[in-house]
Amino acid sequence: MTTSRMRAEIGEQPEALRRTIEALLPRVPEIERLAAETRQVLFIARGSSDNAAVYGRYLIESQAGRLATLAAPSIATAYRRRLDLDGVLAVAISQSGKTEEIVETLAWARDCGARTVAVTNGQGSPLAESAEVPLITLAGDELAVPATKTYTTQLAALAVLGLGLGIGRDPADLRRVPDEVERLIAATEASPALPRIVEGLAKVPGAVVSGRGIAFGTALELALKIKEACYLHAMGLSYADLLHGPIAVVDDQTPALLVAADGSPTLPGTVALAERVRGAGSEAFGFGGGSGLAQASTAALPGPDLPEWVAPLGLIVPGQIMVENLARRLGIDPDVPRGLNKVTQTD
Amino acid sequence: MTTSRMRAEIGEQPEALRRTIEALLPRVPEIERLAAETRQVLFIARGSSDNAAVYGRYLIESQAGRLATLAAPSIATAYRRRLDLDGVLAVAISQSGKTEEIVETLAWARDCGARTVAVTNGQGSPLAESAEVPLITLAGDELAVPATKTYTTQLAALAVLGLGLGIGRDPADLRRVPDEVERLIAATEASPALPRIVEGLAKVPGAVVSGRGIAFGTALELALKIKEACYLHAMGLSYADLLHGPIAVVDDQTPALLVAADGSPTLPGTVALAERVRGAGSEAFGFGGGSGLAQASTAALPGPDLPEWVAPLGLIVPGQIMVENLARRLGIDPDVPRGLNKVTQTD
Repeated sequence: MTTSRMRAEIGEQPEALRRTIEALLPRVPEIERLAAETRQVLFIARGSSDNAAVYGRYLIESQAGRLATLAAPSIATAYRRRLDLDGVLAVAISQSGKTEEIVETLAWARDCGARTVAVTNGQGSPLAESAEVPLITLAGDELAVPATKTYTTQLAALAVLGLGLGIGRDPADLRRVPDEVERLIAATEASPALPRIVEGLAKVPGAVVSGRGIAFGTALELALKIKEACYLHAMGLSYADLLHGPIAVVDDQTPALLVAADGSPTLPGTVALAERVRGAGSEAFGFGGGSGLAQASTAALPGPDLPEWVAPLGLIVPGQIMVENLARRLGIDPDVPRGLNKVTQTD
Repeated sequence: MTTSRMRAEIGEQPEALRRTIEALLPRVPEIERLAAETRQVLFIARGSSDNAAVYGRYLIESQAGRLATLAAPSIATAYRRRLDLDGVLAVAISQSGKTEEIVETLAWARDCGARTVAVTNGQGSPLAESAEVPLITLAGDELAVPATKTYTTQLAALAVLGLGLGIGRDPADLRRVPDEVERLIAATEASPALPRIVEGLAKVPGAVVSGRGIAFGTALELALKIKEACYLHAMGLSYADLLHGPIAVVDDQTPALLVAADGSPTLPGTVALAERVRGAGSEAFGFGGGSGLAQASTAALPGPDLPEWVAPLGLIVPGQIMVENLARRLGIDPDVPRGLNKVTQTD
């Protein structure tokens, strides 16, 4: 079996998470000070980092009771319009810390009155240097273009951010994540569902990828990975938006990939969606969601045994492994997808 | 030529817009009173209404300098978590006014301290009855499942909302929209680009649909229409997010549909994207964006001759006509896509 740099980096996640979590947990008091002076959170991000931000917004809204939403960077960089951001905590997320659009938008937010946090793997990067509280992930160098360990360590940083913003959860849950990711990598590669799902996706032009609530960001990230590393038409949608129109697109050439955290209040709706998709003659592939989603699906990969608030740190991992396998099955080098560079510049 | 109910409703838009604009402009002072007591806007919507909300957020942020973001309804309906929404103007948008998820989320926002507006075509609907300021669109009955005149009249209501929130634009621009939509329908149907784009999309499984800033909601709405009425794998993305990974998916079987308002600060980036897509050997189909985007595209449909702040009210119209033609070309009845009902219930 050929292996890739992407597969090696997937395997480095337990260590990368362990390092990042231990380095960032002591920073909670700094975040608490910013939290005391702000009432809501505004995330600034693009690409995989934007999907991490979606986890952050659901985590903070569902657990800390603070409004947490996503910024439109073009207001800063294209329209050059000031907003009143007094009382806002702006959190910029960028793997490299060098994407000019994100650096510029965080500076704009500060000028508009926001307090600032940066989440980045780029120690010493322009983004890290410009934030009041830089939360540096310790993912190490990531060489494959599709982000894996830089993404999950961003999620770890956002879980720490949540602790500082008052989600009132036990940090011990977060410390359990690295071992659980290690177990999940082995369980995924041993699962008979892995080749089944890879073969199911190798013969179709596209798929719908859906999740809701805290798992929605995971669904978007899985859809992004499938697009960038496998060139499939992967459409990431919340399950509620899916029912408002795009469900029409699901057919025997368009399976649904459904992601859920076990024990989540959004799980019953996801299970019902799997049943509806299969009832319409299409395939439903589950990612996590425990035995309920597994039974409703054509085939399902296991999810992490973690409380919902940290479940996304593990929930993407079976998806990463599936994407890496699917890319190679399709004859694509997952490390270097066409048309992409590691640091994306947008304005 | 067979015509459809959808095509008839596209043609009813000038009248529907005229009625709606004249009925809602006198409501500006009511909105101004709510604006004086709030500092930011939170939209609550799904499906096409969510795409209207994306226009609303860019309009209000870029022109009124107020933070305007999109709510995650599952925080209310699945997680049942209260947020502090003091100082927030919650704006719920729903064609029918009967989608329980949206009705419930607006009630939750009010309970959390928000002031409330509803934008709906459902006079007397639960949503209209529950809001402090209901803005009723006068689209008339819409029978085709894909929303057309209920969508553009929602945009008109949001333009009026923007006037009440202090965007400082001339209502005369808005009053010019109905005639411009009428002209655009004729110009689109006379354009040689229409059959060219329809044939280009009839032979591929999917497409990327992209726009940015005030045109981003139009791109998302065009992608939704293509999915629900033509069953193509249409992936709606902002052009900055597209460059962060999904650009890999564009190939000779995956054209790009690019939407821009003429004169927008986001136009140069959209033109550059069209050039990049064509340079990579793919087709780029333009919607609006004036001669700049038309020259950079394989084929382009005209856009409205309107200031950017109201351009989206016309910008979607050539896309609606293209979708209706493409559906019939593919042997699909655009009025009744598989798996959909006119009122979508989500929880």
